[in-house]
Amino acid sequence: MPLDALFSPRGVAVVGASNRELTIGYRIIENLLDFGYTGPIHPVNPKGGEIRGLTAYPSILDVPEPVDLAHIVIKNTYVPACIEDCAKKGVKAVIVNTAGFREIGEQGETLERQLVAVAKKTGIRVFGPNCQGVINTDPAVRAYCNFTFTRPTAGHISIVAQSGGVGEVIHQRITELGVGVRQYASNGNACDVSIPEIIEHYGHDDETKVIVVHIESLPAPQAFLDIVTDVARRKPVLAMKVGRTAEGAKAVSSHTGGLMKQDTAIELIFEKAGVVSFRNMEDLCQSAIGFACQPAPSGNRVGMIANTGGPAIIATDELVERGMVMPPLSEQTAAALRDKLYPEASINNPVDVLATAGPEHFAAAIDALLGDDDIDAIFLNFVTPFFVDTLGVAREIAAANRRSSKPIIATVMTEKQGWAETLKVIRDGGVPTYDMPETGAKVLASMAHYAAMQRRPAEKPAAFPDVDGGTAKSIIETAITRKKTRDGAANAARGAKKPGDMDPAFLSAEEGYRLLACYGIPAAPCKAAINVDECLAAADEIGYPVVLKVDAETIVHKTDAGGVVLDLRDGNALRREAERMARQFADASPRFLVQKQLTDDGIEVIVGAKAAEGLGHIIMFGLGGIYVEVLKDVSFKLAPVTASEAAEMIDSLQASALFRGIRGRPGVDTAALAEIIQRVSQMLADNPAIRELDINPIFAFPSGAKAADVRVMV
Amino acid sequence: MPLDALFSPRGVAVVGASNRELTIGYRIIENLLDFGYTGPIHPVNPKGGEIRGLTAYPSILDVPEPVDLAHIVIKNTYVPACIEDCAKKGVKAVIVNTAGFREIGEQGETLERQLVAVAKKTGIRVFGPNCQGVINTDPAVRAYCNFTFTRPTAGHISIVAQSGGVGEVIHQRITELGVGVRQYASNGNACDVSIPEIIEHYGHDDETKVIVVHIESLPAPQAFLDIVTDVARRKPVLAMKVGRTAEGAKAVSSHTGGLMKQDTAIELIFEKAGVVSFRNMEDLCQSAIGFACQPAPSGNRVGMIANTGGPAIIATDELVERGMVMPPLSEQTAAALRDKLYPEASINNPVDVLATAGPEHFAAAIDALLGDDDIDAIFLNFVTPFFVDTLGVAREIAAANRRSSKPIIATVMTEKQGWAETLKVIRDGGVPTYDMPETGAKVLASMAHYAAMQRRPAEKPAAFPDVDGGTAKSIIETAITRKKTRDGAANAARGAKKPGDMDPAFLSAEEGYRLLACYGIPAAPCKAAINVDECLAAADEIGYPVVLKVDAETIVHKTDAGGVVLDLRDGNALRREAERMARQFADASPRFLVQKQLTDDGIEVIVGAKAAEGLGHIIMFGLGGIYVEVLKDVSFKLAPVTASEAAEMIDSLQASALFRGIRGRPGVDTAALAEIIQRVSQMLADNPAIRELDINPIFAFPSGAKAADVRVMV
Repeated sequence: MPLDALFSPRGVAVVGASNRELTIGYRIIENLLDFGYTGPIHPVNPKGGEIRGLTAYPSILDVPEPVDLAHIVIKNTYVPACIEDCAKKGVKAVIVNTAGFREIGEQGETLERQLVAVAKKTGIRVFGPNCQGVINTDPAVRAYCNFTFTRPTAGHISIVAQSGGVGEVIHQRITELGVGVRQYASNGNACDVSIPEIIEHYGHDDETKVIVVHIESLPAPQAFLDIVTDVARRKPVLAMKVGRTAEGAKAVSSHTGGLMKQDTAIELIFEKAGVVSFRNMEDLCQSAIGFACQPAPSGNRVGMIANTGGPAIIATDELVERGMVMPPLSEQTAAALRDKLYPEASINNPVDVLATAGPEHFAAAIDALLGDDDIDAIFLNFVTPFFVDTLGVAREIAAANRRSSKPIIATVMTEKQGWAETLKVIRDGGVPTYDMPETGAKVLASMAHYAAMQRRPAEKPAAFPDVDGGTAKSIIETAITRKKTRDGAANAARGAKKPGDMDPAFLSAEEGYRLLACYGIPAAPCKAAINVDECLAAADEIGYPVVLKVDAETIVHKTDAGGVVLDLRDGNALRREAERMARQFADASPRFLVQKQLTDDGIEVIVGAKAAEGLGHIIMFGLGGIYVEVLKDVSFKLAPVTASEAAEMIDSLQASALFRGIRGRPGVDTAALAEIIQRVSQMLADNPAIRELDINPIFAFPSGAKAADVRVMV
Repeated sequence: MPLDALFSPRGVAVVGASNRELTIGYRIIENLLDFGYTGPIHPVNPKGGEIRGLTAYPSILDVPEPVDLAHIVIKNTYVPACIEDCAKKGVKAVIVNTAGFREIGEQGETLERQLVAVAKKTGIRVFGPNCQGVINTDPAVRAYCNFTFTRPTAGHISIVAQSGGVGEVIHQRITELGVGVRQYASNGNACDVSIPEIIEHYGHDDETKVIVVHIESLPAPQAFLDIVTDVARRKPVLAMKVGRTAEGAKAVSSHTGGLMKQDTAIELIFEKAGVVSFRNMEDLCQSAIGFACQPAPSGNRVGMIANTGGPAIIATDELVERGMVMPPLSEQTAAALRDKLYPEASINNPVDVLATAGPEHFAAAIDALLGDDDIDAIFLNFVTPFFVDTLGVAREIAAANRRSSKPIIATVMTEKQGWAETLKVIRDGGVPTYDMPETGAKVLASMAHYAAMQRRPAEKPAAFPDVDGGTAKSIIETAITRKKTRDGAANAARGAKKPGDMDPAFLSAEEGYRLLACYGIPAAPCKAAINVDECLAAADEIGYPVVLKVDAETIVHKTDAGGVVLDLRDGNALRREAERMARQFADASPRFLVQKQLTDDGIEVIVGAKAAEGLGHIIMFGLGGIYVEVLKDVSFKLAPVTASEAAEMIDSLQASALFRGIRGRPGVDTAALAEIIQRVSQMLADNPAIRELDINPIFAFPSGAKAADVRVMV
């Protein structure tokens, strides 16, 4: 595998090794030795001599044996030349622990570009700079190429973290919880070896059963999406993106842009890739343990067993709030339980076996639930009473787990010193134990969520054959060319030598409606007009009542500016308003749009889109009109969207009950809306030049739906 | 204090003491001895002899010394007589650990009523039955009157839990986190000594600094509200109510009832009482520790210090999402920091002192933030690098805390064995340390929330002098009498001997509008009519356009049934609809209501109310019309509501931006809405017979607001 030299090096050098204990150059050597690295370690220090009993060489070129991996812990400005030497020596990868690169500004950026250039030229891989390093607990390797303090046991969770601090906290917590780690990486500035590459590496490592990811940003979102989609099909990827509330979201002029949160794109990538997303580290760590120990449930139906009621109520609250269900027990299961539990036991779901229940009662209850086809997972709430053979109970739980194909999650509430052996037997039996019922419940729900994502059908976006892609392209190109010409003229007028970055161009309303027509998106009939008389002629053709809109690229918020008048019922009214607008907007050389007034009984919705950097488009569906801004009842997906994703977007709104029809009001044609969403998706895929799009409102009727306004920025 | 005999007994007997180790009768004696109870312990067992070296007496009456408190661990049916004996002996309180009472059904309920009867008759206090007991760590007492396993150190957190299992988990977790507990109680069936009484007891205990409460139900909500409001003024009360998702919420016919969740009433009680409410035990325990160690912040402005960036981002996310702010540093603070930190340090909020920062840097940063008047609390993110004098940093943190009046919360991310001394120095210095930045952030936010509740001004509900309470009462009494008469006639007709529970009665629409008028609540002009001609006359008086509504108590969902027609513009239209309704609803002996059609440009809102058992009313405000059901954009308060609470109800809606006016649309008269809410509140206070009330819609205009429909159930 491409990153084997990094994670399983057959020899490690430390350039900048030191005898001073509180330096990174000493610490890495100490860590490699203490953790029992199975290959040779070569300190490199200009003074030579010995470091922790190992011969130090003046230069990497002096090392007599082959070296796969070199740590670089020398002054930032010396790093590029050092990497060249490493490449000359045949080193395959370097970990640049040294800081002082991109993070310090321009000078550091220049240096970092040099590292990338050396990597490109020589083929050596650069990990970092400004990073911790990697750890591999594989007994055949035992590489602790890192200056941190956590000493993991070998296990099945692999971690990659952008921030070293956060990576260390996650690593430390998982280790403290008594669960083993397979590989660890924190790659700091990530100038060459990237997080997606590391995830891919973990994906191919058979001993990695769960991958834990922390990111602060996604520089190459499409690569992340492609790689992680593939990995997440094979094993659970749990991820946390931080920096949710950071300010400085750019001002955007469209609704769709304004309604997107900082993290919408990344959350959508996680969702599309099948990544389980977390909002806090504790839940992430605890869930990693669940995934590492147990299979994901094949559904969301939980059978619960408790020996005291209170914690079971808490676990039930948490499970149900996270979409799990607690089905009633089948008659057969209930009969089996009545037979074997105390007569006072509660034969429901949760099963309360009573505080006095012993090993045989727990065994009977677990077996009954394992045998119930309506139950996908078992949740145990076990408080350890002093008068019960808790060790015996633990042995039964472990034994049941060995014969179970359903996941078993246990909340064990106890005094950990006194009941250490009980806890150990359950854990050694492969059942994860949690201190709190809420924690276990969150973990099981996240496992069910992963399993549900795994079950999503493979589905391709629809390709509507009736679209006129050629005309659409030429409409957009015309708008871009017009803008370029105008900008060019403006630049020439003020004597600018070269054109600046181009501002966005807007399609005229008439172009916007033609674009919709190209993609078969129904809209209220409308006609363009250049003066009052043409307005009247257009209205005669369309039929009153009509809406009159001014159409000029420079007027963005037409309604606010008085450029939209609804419900004009006759020629007099239309003439009056058209004349007013002609006067009012004289400076903007206005054209007009006359549009059929739609009846009032439709529900207004919005379909919008926004280009996401490096990632195509994000598409939005929501309640439209004035409610879009106030109620923010909207849903997003990464384009292209499939038929089921379009349906999901509609169903996930708070307002979806309105679409289904309530209180005698008819519902709306959600199939027509879903088709519009998919047709917009196809338009976006064909036309990457579209930067923002708002079709708002679309009037949704009991049969059909019609766009009443459209705004396209290219 | 009334519960002193329970928590600080001068002698404890255990009736049902046993020499068999795995019994509760043995365990309690063992716990009392091991924990070092300072008073005499008297085992009571019919066989006499010795138990753990103590003389056992055949009966409580044989104990030679005074006994304040007796555990009762004998068969359930013997318990009432035993309590009589205890009372005879002069015992002041009993803890009935024995189960088999209310929780087992009818037979147990009868037994439990006997316990209450003995308590009433003799004045002895009964704690339980079916309970764990109490613990008091006061060095002068050391009473472990409980059969559980947690061995607390003496501290300042007192716990009361309805469920013994949950209480034990909380107690165990707080102890495991290394923080001391003052008193503990879990009172099971709570037949006599109640949770509010125990909270009151903790409130008067000077060494209790934080009170932690777990409840599953609130049998006496008003007593809880009264007592806890008083206690929460003096010290933080942190509470968790479980059973949020339990099914079986009663079907209710009003919007207001239908929109209330299972726990709305209890959450409102917590809010009104100033209780900090939690949704999971871990957050509850961690926050208790924060409250026990630190003062609450005087505002929500946080200054953060970190020695690595990643965890600071996570803490910032969590703090900001919970309503905290991170103000920019004042120029003076920034200057002080530039002076004393490394040149590469980041002089912002968060301050990044860098991983290499030592004790002097941390001290300087903390002092600078302590001295900044724009900062209310300090949040430290400290990852312990191996190359830093972390013990020195810890000493500076502890020293700063001693001179600080602002709270300091620390996230210390470390390997706990290796850095045990560092952690200990910080904790011993009174600064709580958390493993994860999210945890510390949640704790600090909950402390700020408590402080904000403490700062709420004392404010009385408005008393509008212009109301006509007498007429209102008679309207309601008339409706009740009419219903009684009708039910009586119906019962007589089918030969029923005695009247059943009375079904609710509805006010007629006309009565409803009169009731609104009595309380000065503006409504669209309307007139009652009994036939088509009266309808026409009423419309002539009111002026077209009008709304016609059928008015019959038996037709609840008038609109769905076709009993409401809007926007009738002339007499012909009105006559046609009135005649249709007269035919359609002939069976219901319909009357009619003719009402002025309000213009369409108001925003529809709802004001509703529902009687809460034992607690007056809950009042609701929300977006009205069809949106009330679909969007559920509503807010609730316990009546009576003050002017600021009414304003808060309006402001807390998602739709509040709509009320303020957006995109050129005018806002609405929120003062008028707030007045309506308060007038409804006064109506409810005056008329406890009102069971449910919906004023829906109320049209809110730029100036004023008018009710357009009202439904009152009494």
